[in-house]
Amino acid sequence: MPKQQFFYNLNDPAQGIHRDLAPGLRARIFPGEQAMLSIVTIAPNAEGLLHNHVEEQWGVMLEGSGVRTQGGEEVNVSAGDFWRTPANLPHRFKAGPKGARILDIFRPPHEEYRTPGSGFSKG
Amino acid sequence: MPKQQFFYNLNDPAQGIHRDLAPGLRARIFPGEQAMLSIVTIAPNAEGLLHNHVEEQWGVMLEGSGVRTQGGEEVNVSAGDFWRTPANLPHRFKAGPKGARILDIFRPPHEEYRTPGSGFSKG
Repeated sequence: MPKQQFFYNLNDPAQGIHRDLAPGLRARIFPGEQAMLSIVTIAPNAEGLLHNHVEEQWGVMLEGSGVRTQGGEEVNVSAGDFWRTPANLPHRFKAGPKGARILDIFRPPHEEYRTPGSGFSKG
Repeated sequence: MPKQQFFYNLNDPAQGIHRDLAPGLRARIFPGEQAMLSIVTIAPNAEGLLHNHVEEQWGVMLEGSGVRTQGGEEVNVSAGDFWRTPANLPHRFKAGPKGARILDIFRPPHEEYRTPGSGFSKG
C-alpha cells in the first residue's frame, strides 16, 4: 500500500534515486530542500575512496560494521554508532566482512545527487 | 571505551543535550554546524502537540510504531519508515502502545536546542 507524499521506508529498494558511488557501494538518495538523505549499502570489505566536500555530513550505522576514517584517524564502528563529518574533512569508509548499511545525511544537498548517476560528489 | 571527537552512539544515554519536549517525549540532541540530530524516545501512547517551524525536518523511525500527522493527514508508521516534513508544515507524532524511538534531523539546527531545556522549539 503506497503511503502519502514525503513518506518512505529504509528497506524499499524501489524508492530513492539510485547511484553507484564506487564498486560495492550503492546508494538510494532522497533529496529535500535543506537536507538530503542517502541510504548506502556496502558490500563485504568494500571501501570508498578518500574524499571531501563542502557539505556537512552525518552518518548513522544501520547494520553491519566497518572502519570510518576521517580527520586522519581510523575508528571501528558498528550498528548504532553515528558520526558527524564537518565540511571539507577528508573521509572514507571500509565495510567489515559482513558488509554494512549506513544512513548518510548531507547539508546542503549534493546537487549532482539529485539525478541518477555514479561516483562520489566532486566537492 | 570513549571514541574520538564527532563519534556517538544511538543507545548511549550519556551523550547529547537532554531535552524534555513534552510529557513522555525525551530527546538527546546533537548539534552540528549545518544540521542537528535528535534522538527522541516516546513513551507508549504519548504524543506531542501539533507544531511547526521554519526548519526542514526528517524523521527516521528506529523502533516501535505510531501515527505521524502532517499536512492534515494521519499516517501509520513503524520501524524502518522515514519521512520529510517541509518547512512550516504543521506536524505531530503519537506513539503506539509499545512506544517509539525516532531519529529527527533538523536543518538548520534549532538554535534553542543547543542548550538543555524543555518544550518544542517555538518556530
